[in-house]
Amino acid sequence: MKTYINPQFSEWHGLTSRPTKEAQDLQKTVLDVFARIKIDKDQALIDFTEHFDKVKLKSLEVSSQEIEEAKALISDELKEAIQLAASNIEKFHAVQQEQVQVIETTKGVSCWREFRGIENVGIYIPGGTAPLFSTTLMLGIPAKLAGCVNTILCTPPNKEGKIHPTILYTANLIGIKKIYKVGGIQAIGALTFGTETIQKVDKIFGPGNQYVTAAKQVAQNFGVAIDMPAGPSEVLVIADKTSVPKYVAADLLSQAEHGIDSQVILLTTCEKTIKEIITEINTQLTVLPRAELARKALENSRGIVLNSIQECIAFSNLYAPEHLIFACEKAEDFIPKIINAGSVFLGNYSCESAGDYASGTNHTLPTNGYAKNYSGVSLDSFIKKITFQKISAEGIQNIGPAIELMAEAEELFAHKNAVTLRLNDLKQ
Amino acid sequence: MKTYINPQFSEWHGLTSRPTKEAQDLQKTVLDVFARIKIDKDQALIDFTEHFDKVKLKSLEVSSQEIEEAKALISDELKEAIQLAASNIEKFHAVQQEQVQVIETTKGVSCWREFRGIENVGIYIPGGTAPLFSTTLMLGIPAKLAGCVNTILCTPPNKEGKIHPTILYTANLIGIKKIYKVGGIQAIGALTFGTETIQKVDKIFGPGNQYVTAAKQVAQNFGVAIDMPAGPSEVLVIADKTSVPKYVAADLLSQAEHGIDSQVILLTTCEKTIKEIITEINTQLTVLPRAELARKALENSRGIVLNSIQECIAFSNLYAPEHLIFACEKAEDFIPKIINAGSVFLGNYSCESAGDYASGTNHTLPTNGYAKNYSGVSLDSFIKKITFQKISAEGIQNIGPAIELMAEAEELFAHKNAVTLRLNDLKQ
Repeated sequence: MKTYINPQFSEWHGLTSRPTKEAQDLQKTVLDVFARIKIDKDQALIDFTEHFDKVKLKSLEVSSQEIEEAKALISDELKEAIQLAASNIEKFHAVQQEQVQVIETTKGVSCWREFRGIENVGIYIPGGTAPLFSTTLMLGIPAKLAGCVNTILCTPPNKEGKIHPTILYTANLIGIKKIYKVGGIQAIGALTFGTETIQKVDKIFGPGNQYVTAAKQVAQNFGVAIDMPAGPSEVLVIADKTSVPKYVAADLLSQAEHGIDSQVILLTTCEKTIKEIITEINTQLTVLPRAELARKALENSRGIVLNSIQECIAFSNLYAPEHLIFACEKAEDFIPKIINAGSVFLGNYSCESAGDYASGTNHTLPTNGYAKNYSGVSLDSFIKKITFQKISAEGIQNIGPAIELMAEAEELFAHKNAVTLRLNDLKQ
Repeated sequence: MKTYINPQFSEWHGLTSRPTKEAQDLQKTVLDVFARIKIDKDQALIDFTEHFDKVKLKSLEVSSQEIEEAKALISDELKEAIQLAASNIEKFHAVQQEQVQVIETTKGVSCWREFRGIENVGIYIPGGTAPLFSTTLMLGIPAKLAGCVNTILCTPPNKEGKIHPTILYTANLIGIKKIYKVGGIQAIGALTFGTETIQKVDKIFGPGNQYVTAAKQVAQNFGVAIDMPAGPSEVLVIADKTSVPKYVAADLLSQAEHGIDSQVILLTTCEKTIKEIITEINTQLTVLPRAELARKALENSRGIVLNSIQECIAFSNLYAPEHLIFACEKAEDFIPKIINAGSVFLGNYSCESAGDYASGTNHTLPTNGYAKNYSGVSLDSFIKKITFQKISAEGIQNIGPAIELMAEAEELFAHKNAVTLRLNDLKQ
């Protein structure tokens, strides 16, 4: 971690930069895979899975027998933990449901919004050694609460053609019925175009490697929506004398272990604090299985001493972190100043791991500065808000003359005429 | 308008297709303009405006004198009409503000969302003969309610270097202070990268021609968000014996006059109704100034007789119209069945023009089938929802063991350790 003591404001912009990665242009690769899926459908998926995942599948769909086997493989303790997390995530997202409010904007003119779940949603869960069953909860639970009719989960099989049991257990727990063994570009292609087995969806959610990310980007050109632009995970911690250095160090490391392109930023008002935290990081690193990844991520990372907590918040707003841990006793006093962040953790006990797994908030959040213009995943992400209006004879008489004038000023005379005809009939 | 009598369900999918337009690949053109703007900033804007809009500007910014001149040019009647519309739009969008709700998901674990306006937003208003001052209201009012700090409006000047007075009057009325004379790709480039005069924004809103649409698409690759994918405007009307044929005809025409790529769809349960409406369309067309545009749009349009209102709604959900006019007396009984639509107009007096201008609902809506996966513009579009959590010592003791188990199962040991350290301290 590089440290900077009281950098000039003119240097701040440079200090908010993310580690740049050579963006490989994968568009052609994606379009080639998509073209094959449009023609050969299921057979294309089976072929790509054999090629990329080194397993020849007989069936793309996970069977109920496989679900039962998965259940038997999970300890009761882990089941209870997952259930607690699911319950908290459900509680937090359930209150995001809005009530229909009818507004009479002018007498006789009633307007309101109704909420409908997006009918068909796809959830992508990456494979690999660390099975992200927590993401299954974060995406599957709001989909269920939103009333999405079809929730389809795709995740790549291992070389034995199996899905990790924690993913199957979790998906089953929250009621996802359609689980398919397909990953990478081909999974996104299947969700975009549909095959004999996998239904086309309206919106695709979930994290993934650079191929999945590129495929989601391209899928948008074929009428599918996606959750948000993807980027490496990141945390910014604001610490002062009231912070506990070993907790801060642990929080920074829990971000750094995600991958070498993760970024951690430490802001503090106190040079001594930064030294103590770096010492703690080095101690804790020695026992971490993913220490190598974390060490490389820390090379991209910055510890910055600033003059005040206000300055730390101003820097944080400029950086717009995915996660902001505000590890100070008085953190709550500064909430109104926090403008750009995905998710905020206040005080010494609100560690990022809590939000990653079990406190109830969603862990699918905007990265790479997108917290300036995007929100994290919530119930909203699975819902459409449709406006309705019911105008009475009195209502059109009240607003009709204004519409006629405005339509005429925009030179849209058919728009005007639609009102004039009605008003004339009401004059009789 | 082509008519179809009771088409088979297998034909429905084809009947929901939009008029295909040869999508010109404008990406290179956009990138060239963007590259020039990044280097030459204001000078590039002035040069492009001279080239495309045929006017050499001395200043990009609209002056307060120009605003005063515009005010003097608008009739009092039109001012009052705009004020009525603004008031209704404000009423409808103001109630979309959510209250902060703190949820204790587990004892000691408090989670909530706070709402922050996107700091910098850009509004694009096209030029041309029909000045879309109504769109200024639809985008500027929710931006103001959301608390966006900087709202920047760009619109192309005419050959005299002027902006239409209705746009200036409207923007000024709702408090937009920064209005710039720049249109097309160069306006989107200026909002994306910033120049000496025009500030870079976080999100760009507004309609435009194919160049503007392409530029907004490309801008997304540079960290800017956009309101939604753009497409030609469209309406679907469901009519039965309780509908008034001349009103339905007027509503279909008010959509068709937008442009030759607009689409109108008429669904009805009654063959006689469709004939009466087509007769009315032909009568009304004779007196419309934009009859030629409307006539061409009608060539892409369809009148379809179906067996029941339920079938009409099922077809409408498949088509997912931007505007759905449900011109039947019993329309309200069917609201729960409406799943995919941008904005819905119920009964004989709720004409689309009302929502376009003055009822209060937003007219920036998803087209081209995107009502399946996108909502129209609302207060949400100008807001970020940030999750917060505050966990007490008791809270982390309650959920900590679950987090440890889940992190371990995902093989993320630093995530686990962040909890373990805290729990160990609390055991002492």
